Amino acid sequence: MRFYFWIFCFVSAYGQSGLTEWVRPLIGTQDAGHTFPGATVPFGAIQLSPDTDTIPFSVNGSYQPNVYRYCAGYQYADSTIVGFSHTHFSGTGHSDLGDILLMPNIGAIQWNPGTAAQPQKGYRSVYHHNEVVQPGYYAVYLDEPKVQAELTTTQRVGIHKYRFDSQEPAHFILDLTHGIYNYEGKNVWCYLRVENDTLLTGYKQTNGWGRTRTVYFAIALSVPLSSYQIKDFKPSTYKGFWRKFDTENNFPEGAGAGLKAALFFENQKEVEFRVALSGVSIDGALLNLQTEAPVVGFEQYKHAAQLQWQRAFSVVKDIEFLRLNDAYNFSTAWYHTLIGSTIYMDVDGRYRGLDQRIHIAEGFTNYTTFSLWDTYRAEQPFLNLFYPKENADMIESMQQHFMQSTQHMLPIWSHYANENWCMIGYHAVSVMADAVVKENPYLKDPSRFLRAANSTANQRFYEGLGAYIDLGYVPEDQSGSSVSKTLEYAYDDWCIAQMASHLKADSLALEYQKRAKNYRNVFDASSGFMRPKLTNGTFKNAFDPLDTHGQGFIEGNAWNYSFYVPHDPKGLIELMGGEAKFIAHLDSLFEMQLPDAYFAQTEDIMREGIIGNYVHGNEPSHHIPFFYNFTAQPWKTQSSTRMILDKQYKLESAGMGGNDDCGQMSAWYLFAALGFYPFAPGSSQYCLTAPLVKSAILEFDNGQVLRIQTVNNSDKNIYIQQVTLNGRLLNQPFITHRELLEGGELLFKMGPKPAKKAFVSVKQF
Amino acid sequence: MRFYFWIFCFVSAYGQSGLTEWVRPLIGTQDAGHTFPGATVPFGAIQLSPDTDTIPFSVNGSYQPNVYRYCAGYQYADSTIVGFSHTHFSGTGHSDLGDILLMPNIGAIQWNPGTAAQPQKGYRSVYHHNEVVQPGYYAVYLDEPKVQAELTTTQRVGIHKYRFDSQEPAHFILDLTHGIYNYEGKNVWCYLRVENDTLLTGYKQTNGWGRTRTVYFAIALSVPLSSYQIKDFKPSTYKGFWRKFDTENNFPEGAGAGLKAALFFENQKEVEFRVALSGVSIDGALLNLQTEAPVVGFEQYKHAAQLQWQRAFSVVKDIEFLRLNDAYNFSTAWYHTLIGSTIYMDVDGRYRGLDQRIHIAEGFTNYTTFSLWDTYRAEQPFLNLFYPKENADMIESMQQHFMQSTQHMLPIWSHYANENWCMIGYHAVSVMADAVVKENPYLKDPSRFLRAANSTANQRFYEGLGAYIDLGYVPEDQSGSSVSKTLEYAYDDWCIAQMASHLKADSLALEYQKRAKNYRNVFDASSGFMRPKLTNGTFKNAFDPLDTHGQGFIEGNAWNYSFYVPHDPKGLIELMGGEAKFIAHLDSLFEMQLPDAYFAQTEDIMREGIIGNYVHGNEPSHHIPFFYNFTAQPWKTQSSTRMILDKQYKLESAGMGGNDDCGQMSAWYLFAALGFYPFAPGSSQYCLTAPLVKSAILEFDNGQVLRIQTVNNSDKNIYIQQVTLNGRLLNQPFITHRELLEGGELLFKMGPKPAKKAFVSVKQF
Repeated sequence: MRFYFWIFCFVSAYGQSGLTEWVRPLIGTQDAGHTFPGATVPFGAIQLSPDTDTIPFSVNGSYQPNVYRYCAGYQYADSTIVGFSHTHFSGTGHSDLGDILLMPNIGAIQWNPGTAAQPQKGYRSVYHHNEVVQPGYYAVYLDEPKVQAELTTTQRVGIHKYRFDSQEPAHFILDLTHGIYNYEGKNVWCYLRVENDTLLTGYKQTNGWGRTRTVYFAIALSVPLSSYQIKDFKPSTYKGFWRKFDTENNFPEGAGAGLKAALFFENQKEVEFRVALSGVSIDGALLNLQTEAPVVGFEQYKHAAQLQWQRAFSVVKDIEFLRLNDAYNFSTAWYHTLIGSTIYMDVDGRYRGLDQRIHIAEGFTNYTTFSLWDTYRAEQPFLNLFYPKENADMIESMQQHFMQSTQHMLPIWSHYANENWCMIGYHAVSVMADAVVKENPYLKDPSRFLRAANSTANQRFYEGLGAYIDLGYVPEDQSGSSVSKTLEYAYDDWCIAQMASHLKADSLALEYQKRAKNYRNVFDASSGFMRPKLTNGTFKNAFDPLDTHGQGFIEGNAWNYSFYVPHDPKGLIELMGGEAKFIAHLDSLFEMQLPDAYFAQTEDIMREGIIGNYVHGNEPSHHIPFFYNFTAQPWKTQSSTRMILDKQYKLESAGMGGNDDCGQMSAWYLFAALGFYPFAPGSSQYCLTAPLVKSAILEFDNGQVLRIQTVNNSDKNIYIQQVTLNGRLLNQPFITHRELLEGGELLFKMGPKPAKKAFVSVKQF
Repeated sequence: MRFYFWIFCFVSAYGQSGLTEWVRPLIGTQDAGHTFPGATVPFGAIQLSPDTDTIPFSVNGSYQPNVYRYCAGYQYADSTIVGFSHTHFSGTGHSDLGDILLMPNIGAIQWNPGTAAQPQKGYRSVYHHNEVVQPGYYAVYLDEPKVQAELTTTQRVGIHKYRFDSQEPAHFILDLTHGIYNYEGKNVWCYLRVENDTLLTGYKQTNGWGRTRTVYFAIALSVPLSSYQIKDFKPSTYKGFWRKFDTENNFPEGAGAGLKAALFFENQKEVEFRVALSGVSIDGALLNLQTEAPVVGFEQYKHAAQLQWQRAFSVVKDIEFLRLNDAYNFSTAWYHTLIGSTIYMDVDGRYRGLDQRIHIAEGFTNYTTFSLWDTYRAEQPFLNLFYPKENADMIESMQQHFMQSTQHMLPIWSHYANENWCMIGYHAVSVMADAVVKENPYLKDPSRFLRAANSTANQRFYEGLGAYIDLGYVPEDQSGSSVSKTLEYAYDDWCIAQMASHLKADSLALEYQKRAKNYRNVFDASSGFMRPKLTNGTFKNAFDPLDTHGQGFIEGNAWNYSFYVPHDPKGLIELMGGEAKFIAHLDSLFEMQLPDAYFAQTEDIMREGIIGNYVHGNEPSHHIPFFYNFTAQPWKTQSSTRMILDKQYKLESAGMGGNDDCGQMSAWYLFAALGFYPFAPGSSQYCLTAPLVKSAILEFDNGQVLRIQTVNNSDKNIYIQQVTLNGRLLNQPFITHRELLEGGELLFKMGPKPAKKAFVSVKQF
């Protein structure tokens, strides 16, 4: 335990609890942020959180706006809570999970959640925003059953504590059919056993975004059940000779696709549940329960969860902010970077692999939930810098995924032993290359990663990749979003080349350096934009560079995506007609006025997520503000990032302009606020920008301490006048990973106007 | 290996292959026998057999005659074969299994089996009865694809060999949705991976009679796949982003409730499959494959399977029959006693328990498929006598089931990690008591069995058992089939008492001796029959002792069931008014003429299964012919059993008058044919009767050899004149288990007329 005491400028001492005090998990829980407010620990396998609605929908699985709205199960503006479930994505734009719902109640049993409009007709309850929402702890008062609910977790066990204020007997609904994105047919099978009057076990198996997903559980009760009911609401379950008995009342075993239970506790005013999950087996869940939460005791688990957060935040030895809001936003962003990917293995190291077989994680911790199209940009580089062991373990988890993949591919977007194939590219190679090039000391045998990357990049079935290999671009008539794919493949190929170079695999490096140039094949000099090309080599005719739908792009338009060459800024600048033209183009991106129609057709981002035509609420633009660093006008990076930090991150439930995307939006915030950003992961170089923090003292895993200091930093003084590292002038707006890791003082002198000579030369990549 | 050579009277030497030569697995495959003709080894986990039809039916799971017809997947009278699947019950009256179907084909892919009327419209094929059907081997020529199919197995691996005579390219349908009793919704989930071009893995999960059942598989191919297709025919499977690719053509992974695959082999005239199954996991299936069938080689596996049968049959050192037919019937019956229960664990001892968790069988072999209402009568006693180790392992498997049961009960009718609750009673206690009383040397700590039995017999939720405990009988107004239940509970309770006495648990013995008398509570002296009683203590008014439906009985009527007191024949004789009345009653059972209407309403038995009103095709009467031994007219037992052996067991596909019921019908045959029968399992005494065999030399597991010899035995000389054991006159028509096990010569002198003084006294139980 390494907690220091420092004077904190505006509120109080930066105390033992570090950033913990200023984390506000409600940020992002309204509208598009898609974060969840419930209890979890760093990288916790359990995300125990209230769900405010479930949107069942028809069997065809078509994508519906309300389903999108409930990616995290919770919307702050809602006035009812359906119940508390144990698994949630943080900030995603597609949905799943929401497993094993518990809801306290009194009075007659209501088996269905009911609707927000008529909560009294279901097991849900009205609540008012008297929630207590902290890292590792969530509490709320449920008005209808008059119940105080408190939640905390260990790594693999959700701990619930319920206090009943009513005199009516207490009961709980255990709804195994509840889930997020809960279309008809999602629940494949459920199984429940009442092992004894204080222990339930079972599992729940779903189809869906995770095509073949099973969650095993073991639930320990603090007081014995008085009685219970188990019902199967799926009429197609074959009942056979089970019909001979009353299998609904106090019958200790149930199975079926539509299983729910009601648990009765007579004369009990307080009930605690310890709900252990496992992806492996019921035995795994029991082992997790016995290891992590063997006894009743909510307070001790809550305390332990809070200590875990303090320990995770202890990277930040001290920090000063210009404004109070920044303390909250910064701390919450840091919190959100630590709950995107989660541990996915039992305490004994066993986990379910992509091949649906049980593996043992030997020498690493297995993680799941890799939203790689998002997180390769800043989230994984953030972890690689501050949590290199965890990042290396995630990379090892990706490598194991590759070993288990019958498609011989690294993960694209994977969760809970499933590849869900969401979004494009093969950005696991970026995460690997970034860690290899930055020499993450926890990586084992990185030549394996190169082989996995090379295999992944040659799977012809995948999203136009065959044509890309043959033609040097993805033809739009063969595979939609072809420009986005071409550009991202080219970047990923550069990452593989970087990794190959670092590992002295020269022929592979050459091969992928060549592929990395493929971005040029979709540049249309006549329009000045990247533009969809057809198999016959001509550009597609109809072309609106503002359109984000069906025009060769995904989650972006030609304006945004034309800047998607993070690995060759010099080449792109040349392609676009030289620096002057490039800067003008870049300026107009931030300054243009968009028509209203644009927003109507754009799903993932709110008007608040847009600055000009720069879309911060979606990821493809995240590196764009830093492009000025590669021109003679790096001060525009500084003003842009400061503007984005102010406009796109607000201290409110609707404070995020787009999905947090498993921490990517938050990691962007943190890098920009600290004054440097990984423009092209796979390079060891960061772009410098104007820090938002007044100062920060960061301790790296290697024991070195970096002191970020600013002079004259303020709301107005947003321009860098000079940067020194340990007294040495940095004459280019870049800093390397190694320079950061060596620690010392990184001093930014700030001023109200661009210092055109702050950097004497602009180094090219 | 202990094979001797003996002169075999009428055909050839009783050779190295023992009974194997005379086994005709087709016996029972037509109409009600419900045996399967395919390949298996003794107690084999794989039963690789042709299915001649599948009867999908509607979602409500209602019981349909055609489903009953296809309990074993095969009906000899059918002219088409749908394909070859790997799991089959032998002789049951309810259905499940039929997992993992393979079918060779040529020409265009047909994804559905089609109908028997139009086989060319499906993947099924016409065949003519050119089958070769032997223990461990099955071959058939499929007319439409012109394919010679051969099947054999190891314990856990099915081996297929297909020779294509057509010049068209070969393909196979791998239909994971195929199954027996395959109602809509039975297939819960399927998963298939093409690991490489010679290895497929996956699993199939079903609802149904086995409520929660998963079969994992690993399939090795002798030649590489040229190409393949995988399709999901269940439209409700959510496809998510898998839609982005062609996941049907050569895509190496599929999942969904409706999965089928087509496997193509270009220019291959011969293909072998090795299909390993596991109830544990894909890894388990791979381990079974690698251990039991690591290489291609049909002939070697076939030879090994045949050797396993020879070894199993080597109990019979020599045997002589009166008639050639008897050799076939006897050998086939012996064969059928060894394929009812099957091994259910991987080669490493891991198996799925009733609690759906993975267990390790320590010190025993785990078995499944316990059709206990049938098999406790003769099948398990047969195994206990000749295969005591296997019987002890089955008992241990039942004990482990109890340990895993959240209902705290021994198995009723269990299969593949499921309790299916079929039929009545709790006859596992009989199997246990029989083995305990007969001092099976392989039992471990039998006091555990007594505790399990006592727990089982006190589960009030079960089938009127609460009322039975309170009132001494099951009231018909509380639980149907109440008389059958009362009588069987009383017998089972006597079994528990026997076990308790043997284990010196005196108070339990007393308690259950008392419960064993409960049969008296449903005897109606006024009608002379056992009769349904109501909660208020009066007999139910409407009462037809011939009716088998809704009259307090199950699979029998008051005529048959009134004799169901195997544990207290003296008591029953007294209750029925003394010996003279009892004998008259018994005589009329065998001699009465039944109305045609009787057969119309009786599901399980054919007219051929009836002798008078004695129903041999159902089990409740199986002990009745031996009741004469408890009277002064034991010769009627002798004539009855000889008549039943002749009438009920025929050398033809429709040769069984009722379901073989996992070997029960066959075990009855064997005991009766050898001249002794376990009238009341739980007692160590057998009833003597006229042997059908001319002589037999049997070697017990303890090394002792019993020589059964007859003098003057013939079709006409069916009456015992005298029996001696090692020269000592047996003056009662009984012999004990210990006497048998000590070996020596059991000599029956036979004659054409009853020898009224063959037994000088009739010993009471």
